[in-house]
Amino acid sequence: MSLVEDGHPALRTVMAALAPYTGRAYVIGITGAPGVGKSTTTSALVSAYRARGLRVGVLAVDPTSPFSGGALLGDRVRMQDHALDPEVYIRSMASRGHLGGLSRTTPQAVRVLDAAGCAVVLVETVGVGQSEVEIAATADTTLVLLAPGMGDGIQAAKAGILEVGDVFVVNKADRDGADATVRDIRHMISLGDRTAPGLWRPPVVKTVASSGAGIEEVMEAIDKHLAWLTAHDALRRRRVERAAEEVSAIVLEELRSRMGDLRADARLSTLAGKVVDGTTDPYAAADSVLAALT
Amino acid sequence: MSLVEDGHPALRTVMAALAPYTGRAYVIGITGAPGVGKSTTTSALVSAYRARGLRVGVLAVDPTSPFSGGALLGDRVRMQDHALDPEVYIRSMASRGHLGGLSRTTPQAVRVLDAAGCAVVLVETVGVGQSEVEIAATADTTLVLLAPGMGDGIQAAKAGILEVGDVFVVNKADRDGADATVRDIRHMISLGDRTAPGLWRPPVVKTVASSGAGIEEVMEAIDKHLAWLTAHDALRRRRVERAAEEVSAIVLEELRSRMGDLRADARLSTLAGKVVDGTTDPYAAADSVLAALT
Repeated sequence: MSLVEDGHPALRTVMAALAPYTGRAYVIGITGAPGVGKSTTTSALVSAYRARGLRVGVLAVDPTSPFSGGALLGDRVRMQDHALDPEVYIRSMASRGHLGGLSRTTPQAVRVLDAAGCAVVLVETVGVGQSEVEIAATADTTLVLLAPGMGDGIQAAKAGILEVGDVFVVNKADRDGADATVRDIRHMISLGDRTAPGLWRPPVVKTVASSGAGIEEVMEAIDKHLAWLTAHDALRRRRVERAAEEVSAIVLEELRSRMGDLRADARLSTLAGKVVDGTTDPYAAADSVLAALT
Repeated sequence: MSLVEDGHPALRTVMAALAPYTGRAYVIGITGAPGVGKSTTTSALVSAYRARGLRVGVLAVDPTSPFSGGALLGDRVRMQDHALDPEVYIRSMASRGHLGGLSRTTPQAVRVLDAAGCAVVLVETVGVGQSEVEIAATADTTLVLLAPGMGDGIQAAKAGILEVGDVFVVNKADRDGADATVRDIRHMISLGDRTAPGLWRPPVVKTVASSGAGIEEVMEAIDKHLAWLTAHDALRRRRVERAAEEVSAIVLEELRSRMGDLRADARLSTLAGKVVDGTTDPYAAADSVLAALT
């Protein structure tokens, strides 16, 4: 796993060796604004999947997550129960404020947990800006968490969270305003183009993750989504799209690195000098670079 | 010029034809927050360079610029004086909220004005976020404009404007606080590593662009910077670096486009399908894509 985070040279050998053992895990993304209870929900889902006798992986790509070591004592204790369970693999990914990196390393880390025999991998990520969209691209089913009275509805719409959610969870539903938040989300879903026939219509589930209330309903919603994906031949399609993204990211990274080599020796600046002198133009120079890259 | 903005297929032929006629124009970047008087200053500089008998090009990559057609009547009238002058070439670049595009099209547009015989090209860009850094990379001399009482000092430091400025201009210097702004900027320059021996130390000039006051001093500062660049063999070095950036951008764009083709036909998804099935790994798939790209 450290190899993945460091982008270690041995990574490609390791990935090649693991390949035959992958493709079995079901990947569930859990995203939402800070404070909505992502970690508590993740913890409750771990318990529920363990109760089904399944091996569970947890990837916390949320810098505010107690999995990543930065939160309330109560949460951390709850996590440590799982940390002692040999059938639960927990890993927090160092984000290093570097999202492009996360979108490369997250699928690789999922693949490691997959090869390690986890039937379910939960990927927890904080929903700010682009990240939740990138990470949702990693998941088979994405849960979007909201909490009453946080103006989440509007934020969700802004952040594009509405588009990535397969299941919406209104957590802390014992608080005032939970039903209003549910209505808001339902209303926003009805406004979008997600209600067209033949599309999955995301359910909205109320939970109090700290007491476990509603977690069974979340599990049911996930099971239904999996069944829907399978029935519509969409699970494999999603995964192929994801793999294509991942391969593309590796290709672009490799090309950037080769470009860096061209910069390091004098070839690129020699060509650029010719552009400045007017003895060649940028496109012809780019052709020479392309030829040298490959 | 429209070919440049549209990324027209004929662009490379045009650029090749223009290449021998380029490399003569001196490029001056003008950046700063909205409301500091960039367009008024640009207009005053156009007049000053015209008074020297030079052909002048103006590229407005600032969506709030009156050159782009979006501002006060007074400014627009002032611009239209220049618009009637056959020795002044004015072009506003449609940004389409797409900065990556601007960083490709701006140097090409500069090259067109250069080939058209403009001795000076003024590139006006609004200083928000990344843009001023990207555009500054296009200029031989970058003017950073500030105005008193706008908290510009702090904003400048935040936006990295301090690093890109070759000449700082405190415009609207007839307002209260102008001297304080000058002191702030001088202080910030003294804190940075720009005061090391052998580096250009950016001067701070006060102007009231609307009356023309201080514009002669700005011209002198630009002339001194040009003389310094020339004496330190830095002009060509800067331009080669810029051309290298431009060529790199074209290469990456071309590679992305080839990647898009791979996506459009079934090759990428076939490879991605093998990754999902575990019959290959993402790195081996990336190798196949790299081979196909080139």
